[in-house]
Amino acid sequence: MRYKCTCEYDGRCFYGWQRQPKHRTVQKEIEESLSKLYGSEITIHGASRTDRGVHAKGQVFHFDTQKEIPLDKIIKVMNRHFPDDVRVRSVETADEEFHSRYHTVSKTYEYKFSTTQEYSVMDAHYIYQYGKPVNLDVMRETARCFLGTHDFKAFMASGSSVENTVRTIYDITFDIHEDIVTMKVTGSGFLYNMVRIMMGVYFDVSEGIKNVTDVAIELSNGNRTYFRRTAPACGLYLVETVYE
Amino acid sequence: MRYKCTCEYDGRCFYGWQRQPKHRTVQKEIEESLSKLYGSEITIHGASRTDRGVHAKGQVFHFDTQKEIPLDKIIKVMNRHFPDDVRVRSVETADEEFHSRYHTVSKTYEYKFSTTQEYSVMDAHYIYQYGKPVNLDVMRETARCFLGTHDFKAFMASGSSVENTVRTIYDITFDIHEDIVTMKVTGSGFLYNMVRIMMGVYFDVSEGIKNVTDVAIELSNGNRTYFRRTAPACGLYLVETVYE
Repeated sequence: MRYKCTCEYDGRCFYGWQRQPKHRTVQKEIEESLSKLYGSEITIHGASRTDRGVHAKGQVFHFDTQKEIPLDKIIKVMNRHFPDDVRVRSVETADEEFHSRYHTVSKTYEYKFSTTQEYSVMDAHYIYQYGKPVNLDVMRETARCFLGTHDFKAFMASGSSVENTVRTIYDITFDIHEDIVTMKVTGSGFLYNMVRIMMGVYFDVSEGIKNVTDVAIELSNGNRTYFRRTAPACGLYLVETVYE
Repeated sequence: MRYKCTCEYDGRCFYGWQRQPKHRTVQKEIEESLSKLYGSEITIHGASRTDRGVHAKGQVFHFDTQKEIPLDKIIKVMNRHFPDDVRVRSVETADEEFHSRYHTVSKTYEYKFSTTQEYSVMDAHYIYQYGKPVNLDVMRETARCFLGTHDFKAFMASGSSVENTVRTIYDITFDIHEDIVTMKVTGSGFLYNMVRIMMGVYFDVSEGIKNVTDVAIELSNGNRTYFRRTAPACGLYLVETVYE
């Protein structure tokens, strides 16, 4: 039986999603918990390989098991086994063909940063303490360059082996509540560090380091060295993963 | 020269305020940072010995040093030396007689808990995930028993050597915003675990385990075994320390 699970986690104390031999990662913790729960080794497949320090409210993974636990009990049982900084939100049975990574139709990320000079010790791992006012108009104008289908190879951090770098961005919004700005982006998919590099561009245009025309040109040129600034991981949340 | 400093900290990764040889505590981290900054050993005196996991927005401490750093620079310099989960908010010079602990006239604590069933991984170290609706009316009614001057010996956790257990409570309020309740209490001072034990009473009356009449009686009886429930540290914030 294949199960599809949606989970959330606090990325603060994880070295990202993907299993690593020597570090605490989300995949590793979930696999160890499920293996204990099911009494046999379980491998999970996540929709997104979030980085160290990145949070998730809507990460999806799937796994296979022979042993069946009734669906109405499974969430409680899983959450009893999972560490405190990971919670399963929904579990459903899935088609044997279903794959959490390959069958996504869109993903949504949020990036939160604070514009007040006052550094908040309580929020520092959840909201990037940018500490300066921003020009939201110019950020929104820049965002329009990203909408639609583009080759985003200029927005991929090195270390990624992805071959097709074309992605479609459906929507980008900026909301401000008191001193906290939330940028929300929905797209067909995202390259390695792509959202954090986009955030770097927004900060650069707001600070007058870049202008919107050049951003549009260098995006279409695929100029990777032009897009160097990468916003810190702590402000980033994977909020939704959508399937057909 | 004596300096009076107000600081805030995220209690999550500290074993409380007070210096301990083998654990990371707030006092220890601040003393080590200041000792490096001033080039000689600095001892600080805090207004409140907050417990492991308790946060502060308005902790006050004082220390003495011969070396003078201009007041307009001192906050920046200190915060450059301090760890990321501690921030100094204000620094002023104080009278040689001033003592952060003995000269307080009132302290204010807040306790935050969430009433939604949904456990939040992101808030779990900052808001107690109580997970049930509460009866705020009966909580407020109970709070009236605590107002004024009482011998709170029934509200002191064991392990404290305080002799005078009489304290005056000036004000208690409950505010609810979406699913998060904030209890705010101001008093002349608080015994070891007193606010967390008070919170335990509020939860007990809300759940029907205790009633207001018995609470008033057992408080005046000084019945320590009656007040056993202690709410978790993670929801507690020292928000203000006031001097004459």
